[in-house]
Amino acid sequence: MDHLKILKSLAIPAESKIVLLVLDGVGGLPDKTSGRTELETASTPNLDELAKKSSCGLMDPISMGLTPGSGPSHLALFGYDPLKYQVGRGVLEAFGIGFELGPSDVAARINFATIDDEGLITDRRAGRISTEENERLCTLLKDIRMPALEIFLRPVKEHRAVVVFRGQNLSGALTDTDPQQLGVPPKEVQPLTPEGHGTAKIVEEFIAEAKKRLAVEHPANMILMRGFDRYEPPPSLQELYLLKSAAIAMYPMYKGVAKLVGMEVIGEATSIAEEFAVLTERFSDYDFFFLHVKQTDSAGEDGDFRRKVAVIEEVDGLLPQLTALKPDVIVVTCDHSTPAVLRSHSWHAAPVLLYSKYCRPDGIETFTERECAKGCLGRFPTRNLMALALANALRLTKYGA
Amino acid sequence: MDHLKILKSLAIPAESKIVLLVLDGVGGLPDKTSGRTELETASTPNLDELAKKSSCGLMDPISMGLTPGSGPSHLALFGYDPLKYQVGRGVLEAFGIGFELGPSDVAARINFATIDDEGLITDRRAGRISTEENERLCTLLKDIRMPALEIFLRPVKEHRAVVVFRGQNLSGALTDTDPQQLGVPPKEVQPLTPEGHGTAKIVEEFIAEAKKRLAVEHPANMILMRGFDRYEPPPSLQELYLLKSAAIAMYPMYKGVAKLVGMEVIGEATSIAEEFAVLTERFSDYDFFFLHVKQTDSAGEDGDFRRKVAVIEEVDGLLPQLTALKPDVIVVTCDHSTPAVLRSHSWHAAPVLLYSKYCRPDGIETFTERECAKGCLGRFPTRNLMALALANALRLTKYGA
Repeated sequence: MDHLKILKSLAIPAESKIVLLVLDGVGGLPDKTSGRTELETASTPNLDELAKKSSCGLMDPISMGLTPGSGPSHLALFGYDPLKYQVGRGVLEAFGIGFELGPSDVAARINFATIDDEGLITDRRAGRISTEENERLCTLLKDIRMPALEIFLRPVKEHRAVVVFRGQNLSGALTDTDPQQLGVPPKEVQPLTPEGHGTAKIVEEFIAEAKKRLAVEHPANMILMRGFDRYEPPPSLQELYLLKSAAIAMYPMYKGVAKLVGMEVIGEATSIAEEFAVLTERFSDYDFFFLHVKQTDSAGEDGDFRRKVAVIEEVDGLLPQLTALKPDVIVVTCDHSTPAVLRSHSWHAAPVLLYSKYCRPDGIETFTERECAKGCLGRFPTRNLMALALANALRLTKYGA
Repeated sequence: MDHLKILKSLAIPAESKIVLLVLDGVGGLPDKTSGRTELETASTPNLDELAKKSSCGLMDPISMGLTPGSGPSHLALFGYDPLKYQVGRGVLEAFGIGFELGPSDVAARINFATIDDEGLITDRRAGRISTEENERLCTLLKDIRMPALEIFLRPVKEHRAVVVFRGQNLSGALTDTDPQQLGVPPKEVQPLTPEGHGTAKIVEEFIAEAKKRLAVEHPANMILMRGFDRYEPPPSLQELYLLKSAAIAMYPMYKGVAKLVGMEVIGEATSIAEEFAVLTERFSDYDFFFLHVKQTDSAGEDGDFRRKVAVIEEVDGLLPQLTALKPDVIVVTCDHSTPAVLRSHSWHAAPVLLYSKYCRPDGIETFTERECAKGCLGRFPTRNLMALALANALRLTKYGA
């Protein structure tokens, strides 16, 4: 029986509240000089205090050894099997900028890029053009018309945009045109299934027209497309777990994945402190809060060990505002690790602490990867976390007689 | 390939003996004052001595966060995937009282209850009538006849009875009539699948006739039914593992689940000491012994921390009788946790120790939840325990060449 079907059959209503604090990419690796990870380096008295009262463990976002993207790793945090519920970047980006996708819409991410006279890519991000320039370019492309099809084009940030195709029998199983390298031409769109031929042709025509209209522009004289996906809405957190849920996040991607599973995105926070303030203001309105901190991941991706440590310490300083609200369940974890030494997402297990009145505290003294490895939650797939949080919130009834 | 099919293909005969000692619900949570769990509070020199020579770990009965009923959690202990082999309370109760169910029989649990003049339930247990009164009421109902159907009615204890329907094409996929609350009428039986309509109608007629016959009685003037289930016998321990197996248990439910998987229920023990005596007396007769101690769970469900501690200490005092028999493999664990502070089964992982001459001792000094969390068995699903026990009994051959 499907894991989510079981949870749905066991979910019961309750007054309890759950806060899931995601420090994106917080899991790390030891710095070469000190031998300590980012979490081991940071001074985190409040997280440590919470860890002492919590159950701790390590989680595999997808499966051991797999490095996840942000979409699947967040779906796993919300209880979805990330190998079953696959959502493309295009769909997440569209949701993230507030575009209301309809079922069967096909969305894709666009990068404005630079090609030379021979059509070879010289810059995959067109020198990271400004968002204003992006908006101007989008107006040039947004009235591209094709028969029996609606096309929506939306700027995101810098060189990034989203395109949505709405029509009959569209397929999202298409290959990227972004070759992820320079000195080569963009790839052709290929269908991954036989039904995708028509959509691939449509996309190729769209790209040809866009290329024509951008020919006189510089540096953004081409578009690259990736993350094609057809939107098939998964069951929501309300439907599955009877949770009225809210997301507090600053970046489109995370707002997107939250909306995808039926959360309301609340607040207009532009800093971590403001995110915590939104949590406090709206705490009485929802059962479940997903508070997303992006900056740990950004610092990791930039290879900036010190900045990542500083972000962790900033969050630690704000934590008492969260605990003061006395949620029934507090989970602190990450969607995946982003070690500064790797400058990228990684496969390393995610440290997790779960606090509730009914958790079994395991005597961990500090919230770090190596201490969590000794915790009584052991090592488990991230997609099991939600069941554990619901159980601790007394929101699941007994399985079987 | 199915886990059980693999085990079956690898099982080999041997002279070795395995004892599985189940302290039902022994896993707990810290007492608020002392900060120690029931196992941490109890003085258990013999269990601790055994733990030092054993491999320890924590087990999830069904899946992380799920609180199991006794049926699925015991099936998992015996190696069955509890999400695949689902057995209803009715079937377990029927087995527990020694009723020989045939394949495709549908069994259900009956509670004698009290309804008022308007048909609303005022007591779901009819004031817990005596077993004698139950037996008298069952004789009033046991000759209810219906076409092409045999009906068997058996008293269990106090207000509880079991009914078995035997006939062609019966379905066990029916909803309970017990609404689990007072002041409302019993629910109608609803089929959960289209094939269940006929059986639902039969059960409704049975209930209507029972209601008529009980109308003059007090307080038991109605019956409530739940746990409908069609008996589909799973493969036995003999068939799967080549084990001649015996169960030593005091309560119907556990005798029931043991018989379901082909164990012989031995002895007539009425105390834990007598259960250990039965083990000693019959030790030469079987390969595998399931010794079930119910009292840890009962104390937990009553919220009686001290009594649970006392039961643990009582078992510890009896343990030398078990070790003196020198079984090749000794497993001590629970089917699920029943923390006194929660007064119910819970989702918390089950501590387990496994002793054999060939286990890898992990240096755990005391048999407690938090020590087991450090054990070298790690955290694993309960359904894997049986393979581990068989392996340590040198009863499994190599997988693959």
